[in-house]
Amino acid sequence: MRVTAMAREIAEQPEAVRLTLAAHLSRAGEIAALAGRRRVLFISRGSSDNAANYGRYLLEAYAARGAALAAPSIYTAYRSRLDLSDTLVVSVSQSGATEEIVTAQDWVRECGAATLAVTNDARSPLAAGADLALVTEAGPELAVPATKSYLTQVAAMAVIGYAVSPTRGIRQAAWRWEIESAPFEIGQLTEDRTGIDDAVEMLAGSDAVLASARGLMLGTALEAALKLEETCLRPVRGLSYADLRHGPVAVVGPGVTVILLAAKDGPLADAMADQAADLRERGAQVIGIGGNDRFAAAVTLSLAGPRLGERTAPLGTIVPAQLIVESLARFLGLDPDAPRGLRKVTQTELVH
Amino acid sequence: MRVTAMAREIAEQPEAVRLTLAAHLSRAGEIAALAGRRRVLFISRGSSDNAANYGRYLLEAYAARGAALAAPSIYTAYRSRLDLSDTLVVSVSQSGATEEIVTAQDWVRECGAATLAVTNDARSPLAAGADLALVTEAGPELAVPATKSYLTQVAAMAVIGYAVSPTRGIRQAAWRWEIESAPFEIGQLTEDRTGIDDAVEMLAGSDAVLASARGLMLGTALEAALKLEETCLRPVRGLSYADLRHGPVAVVGPGVTVILLAAKDGPLADAMADQAADLRERGAQVIGIGGNDRFAAAVTLSLAGPRLGERTAPLGTIVPAQLIVESLARFLGLDPDAPRGLRKVTQTELVH
Repeated sequence: MRVTAMAREIAEQPEAVRLTLAAHLSRAGEIAALAGRRRVLFISRGSSDNAANYGRYLLEAYAARGAALAAPSIYTAYRSRLDLSDTLVVSVSQSGATEEIVTAQDWVRECGAATLAVTNDARSPLAAGADLALVTEAGPELAVPATKSYLTQVAAMAVIGYAVSPTRGIRQAAWRWEIESAPFEIGQLTEDRTGIDDAVEMLAGSDAVLASARGLMLGTALEAALKLEETCLRPVRGLSYADLRHGPVAVVGPGVTVILLAAKDGPLADAMADQAADLRERGAQVIGIGGNDRFAAAVTLSLAGPRLGERTAPLGTIVPAQLIVESLARFLGLDPDAPRGLRKVTQTELVH
Repeated sequence: MRVTAMAREIAEQPEAVRLTLAAHLSRAGEIAALAGRRRVLFISRGSSDNAANYGRYLLEAYAARGAALAAPSIYTAYRSRLDLSDTLVVSVSQSGATEEIVTAQDWVRECGAATLAVTNDARSPLAAGADLALVTEAGPELAVPATKSYLTQVAAMAVIGYAVSPTRGIRQAAWRWEIESAPFEIGQLTEDRTGIDDAVEMLAGSDAVLASARGLMLGTALEAALKLEETCLRPVRGLSYADLRHGPVAVVGPGVTVILLAAKDGPLADAMADQAADLRERGAQVIGIGGNDRFAAAVTLSLAGPRLGERTAPLGTIVPAQLIVESLARFLGLDPDAPRGLRKVTQTELVH
């Protein structure tokens, strides 16, 4: 069996994340100085937007800093002259060359924002145009579906949350230890294929697939959905469990498989177990990744997540989902490395 | 043929919107005084969140005010003590009784935010707990799918954008005239069934349906998707055209129908025409609502939108989509008034 580039790049993640953390955890002071603004806005698209989603929740839930995801069109199409002098804008783009993101970063600088670029290319226009660049150490990524470039962006988000947080002393040190243990956890997960084949079989036999989570894990659910959809060419929706309840739950029933992603602790851990039970009562199958013991008992098929607290768990929880996607694509006779109709760098047409 | 409550409530919208505008346009000064904060955060779920989505874009694109959609769990589950002294929080809930939204509003007040409630019940806890309440004049809504309660929330958003904007003089007056002409436009659209039956037939014969838009029309696309899904029990995804390009476009091809919603002007009008052409090249059928002449020529089936500029167009563009949803449900042998598995007031479980 040919080993796909996607499989190889999934396996490279522990080292890519370790290098990214080693490069930037020591720059926490520099990041904190730049982030002496009242709030943080993230500008991103696609997988980068899913990494930013984690950054946004991490800042608001664990770092006491207001944060939001920007609508890039406000800067690139509407060209609004907002006063952003109280704002740090974090632009996230693997290539650092997506015209829309580069244009938006230039625009927000003119509006007074401090700018931080998270990109995999130190020589990209995005890195060059920012006050500070956190360059991820993913190396070249050959498969079209982002894996290691996504996870190193997630690592950069963990560094930003840690840097910006007012946590000090032993609690700050404990946070850093947890982040630094992520590469080991990622390594364990990339090697553990328990349940992957069962999940592939369940998904291949489903009429419809959803991926859902809440809070800090939401970005991971959105990323799992995006990867499943673009790689396996099946419509897969990612959405917050709260949004699922407000309407889309009407279409959940027999034939539907829901992938639920959960952290092992945090204020939403028990709620996720209840939600798994609710979906099963409606007749759906539930593949659970991570979560606490109640959650693992409530789902149809349970896959282990990382042994990391909720604030760091997104560095590991995507890995079983990546393994599922890579296997499912092959199972369906598709090439995981080159999905139909997609290119590595997606441009949103700019309005001129 | 029995006239459904949903059909009746769609027809009641011109008057409901007129009453809502009459009650609140004259309070622009009061709203502006409360909104003397640097930024605006919207708290909402479901259809109310789709109305808030318009409010958010309207403020950033046309009223020079930073705005974002909040993640309610930050306040209700993570209980973050963010400093919101620079923030106006707009809470949107038809019933004003959704526990999650009421709890979040109480929380952000303690964090220093000014609070504005948009609700259809003047005696609701949400109205009682806010610094100022804009009570929508939808009257009782019997059908589970929100129509007139949604559109009166959209009208409230138009009032907030108008009130907060720095626009003065004749341009301000022109804006007000445009808003005040919306009930007439809504009336025209509720009576014009041209193309509705063709759209129903096209959707009934599709394997998959998406709804998409950009910028100010995005909330309308999300609302069209939510209504189609909850009423017609088919998975329908609503997403921004930019997000569609980043992955999900891989599943667009023959058998897929995309509902595109567009304004007749604004910086994205021509881009939407290009996007309609792109989707058709991929083999999809496109139902276009609104848009400019190029857009109408590019789609497979064109339905007229309101004769309102982009900043006000969301008050009308949803109407043809509502008519499609009500007809499609009946065509499929379903009851539009009482979709399976949904209640009028959806509670997200609070974490205690």
